[in-house]
Amino acid sequence: SVVTSAKKAPTTLSSDRVINFARGDPTMYESYWRQMGEKCTIVISGHNLMSYFSNAGHFCWFLMPELDRAIRRLHCVVGNAVVDDDRYIVVGNGSTQLFQAVLYALSSSYDPDTEPLSVVAAAPFYSSYPEETEFLRSGLYKWAGDAYSFDKDGAYIEVVTSPNNPDGAIREAVVNRDGGKLIHDLAYYWPQYTPITGKADNDIMLFTFSKATGHAGSRIGWAIVKDIEVATKMVKFMELSSIGVSKESQLRAAKILEVISDDCQNSAPDKEENFFEYGQRLMSDRWEKLREVVKRNGVFSLPKYPQDYCNFIGKYTDPSPAFAWLKSKDGLNCDNLLRELKIVTRGGTNFGVDSNYTRISMLSPDEEFNLLLERLSAIKGTIINGNN
Amino acid sequence: SVVTSAKKAPTTLSSDRVINFARGDPTMYESYWRQMGEKCTIVISGHNLMSYFSNAGHFCWFLMPELDRAIRRLHCVVGNAVVDDDRYIVVGNGSTQLFQAVLYALSSSYDPDTEPLSVVAAAPFYSSYPEETEFLRSGLYKWAGDAYSFDKDGAYIEVVTSPNNPDGAIREAVVNRDGGKLIHDLAYYWPQYTPITGKADNDIMLFTFSKATGHAGSRIGWAIVKDIEVATKMVKFMELSSIGVSKESQLRAAKILEVISDDCQNSAPDKEENFFEYGQRLMSDRWEKLREVVKRNGVFSLPKYPQDYCNFIGKYTDPSPAFAWLKSKDGLNCDNLLRELKIVTRGGTNFGVDSNYTRISMLSPDEEFNLLLERLSAIKGTIINGNN
Repeated sequence: SVVTSAKKAPTTLSSDRVINFARGDPTMYESYWRQMGEKCTIVISGHNLMSYFSNAGHFCWFLMPELDRAIRRLHCVVGNAVVDDDRYIVVGNGSTQLFQAVLYALSSSYDPDTEPLSVVAAAPFYSSYPEETEFLRSGLYKWAGDAYSFDKDGAYIEVVTSPNNPDGAIREAVVNRDGGKLIHDLAYYWPQYTPITGKADNDIMLFTFSKATGHAGSRIGWAIVKDIEVATKMVKFMELSSIGVSKESQLRAAKILEVISDDCQNSAPDKEENFFEYGQRLMSDRWEKLREVVKRNGVFSLPKYPQDYCNFIGKYTDPSPAFAWLKSKDGLNCDNLLRELKIVTRGGTNFGVDSNYTRISMLSPDEEFNLLLERLSAIKGTIINGNN
Repeated sequence: SVVTSAKKAPTTLSSDRVINFARGDPTMYESYWRQMGEKCTIVISGHNLMSYFSNAGHFCWFLMPELDRAIRRLHCVVGNAVVDDDRYIVVGNGSTQLFQAVLYALSSSYDPDTEPLSVVAAAPFYSSYPEETEFLRSGLYKWAGDAYSFDKDGAYIEVVTSPNNPDGAIREAVVNRDGGKLIHDLAYYWPQYTPITGKADNDIMLFTFSKATGHAGSRIGWAIVKDIEVATKMVKFMELSSIGVSKESQLRAAKILEVISDDCQNSAPDKEENFFEYGQRLMSDRWEKLREVVKRNGVFSLPKYPQDYCNFIGKYTDPSPAFAWLKSKDGLNCDNLLRELKIVTRGGTNFGVDSNYTRISMLSPDEEFNLLLERLSAIKGTIINGNN
């Protein structure tokens, strides 16, 4: 096999167990929240939060007003998105559900006799977009693949993920034709992953609690939407799909986002590092270590990102994406190669590109990240039976 | 108009505001949970419940084991469903999302070139089934209307809601042909709504926290499924649709269901009324009052239900459904008629039947329920311009 025939250095692996980096489970942040003690604790009594309604009369009747406020405040504090009063916020069960709500909102007014609306994204694209778009075989919309090769006339939807999942690139729309609607997935547009160079001001922007703060188990995402008709149709989708969103999760997200905003606005001279400073430091450190190992073993390469001035951190920072987009220099199947080292990743073909790429989560706990570095260090030199 | 030309008795309405009984928001139960004090309180710290995963390796990897246990225990205590070890539990964002997960699970293995699978329910049926089935124009399944008039050959899905929403009837499948798959929506099969006459033992049974305990804001539903393949496909749906279910809500549901089970199993001589005894007493009382008002005003009629022995309560009880299915004796549009009294309900046409029926929620707070009784009492005698 590929790896067994590569020159392996003697290893000091502390464990032979399989380690999984295929999913971006953000458990890395747990230690930060643990050290925050009771500041973010919520208490819910048996009689609280019982009604379906959070804000009867509001267009998004299931959105808790305190979460709406906390989201707007955090974006103002971080400076990563425009949240003026004329922007509408829709909450969802993760941005996953909101992505589907947007597809519905943008396509449901089309004539039922016309073809389903094409949905495209530039490759490499987030591996779940095709499946989320296709699995119900909707007559409203259909997956149409890589935006770079999309050449159909008429209406379409392009998903722009920036920074991009899987490769961390800063992106803009690539199709740019009449009749195009854009969804901006900005899940990773936070200071720990990329320099904040300005306030995003797109028609439909998606964010998620999972990637912003690491609270993936809460399943809270939000959309910032310019057009009230689009926002209202998204709410209709949420109503039909799940009659709204857990209030317990909304309450907790509101609390945690407020604490982050408080900490960011704290100007005391002896203040602690705020969440994003902590995250940015941790991610930079991990990237430095990963780049060092990759450079030394010579088998893989990683994308290079330009440094930029981060308005939030207040200095030039290097991007440190939530995923490492690893390429095998010898054109080998990168995912398979790593599986032989008991490292599970998500291969390039899932993202619409070749198998010599694979995606590795950078958000795992320290212990697992260190095992990853150890195992990658164990492949030295060149692959013998490679096809280069 | 209809009402202004009816003989109106002098009213003593305490308010002229519009009161809404269109949705089954179960806020009635709030006072019970308030009196429970801290027994059901949950406390969640900032670092808790962060991962996507609740039970890695389990087929339903996002279901918290404590919720799985609490659900099984409660069904054992109440005796309303078989939850033996060979039954699989899938949690969802309300039973709404699980209903759609079942449609996907039962239809996704069909040949893409065949017609979408027909979904039927006997009229009057829950008003959201048609829209939930149709809104994405899926190629997998389609709404095919009233089960009583369904005469297509081949595979189909029949939804059996028992007790039925809107009319409270105890139901069985009506199509009964080869190739039929059944979904049993048992949201209201709890002692406060109907006598528990035995353990339901259907292939796919849906329940929801909203109707069981009144915690609608938590968006927790569960399915009990016999076939692991169906359960696994439902999990796949949940993964694509929302990457699982809020852990905060799951934790809270587990806590509250355990408290109910504890109280039901408490055999102390001075024990308080348990939740279902309380609910059953309250609902019986409301139904008695409503029947009295309806009888006196002579304009409407209500369904009659046979008394039955409730294994849980341990005596014969009258069904006291979550909705009153009101019929105008004179064939008038019942929803419109009530709107003139500033009572908002959901008219019969939403449920696949005539407009002389309408559905009224019986789960509103006391104050609103009392206003309903007052306003209904205010229409006396017969409708003058009726078409009888």
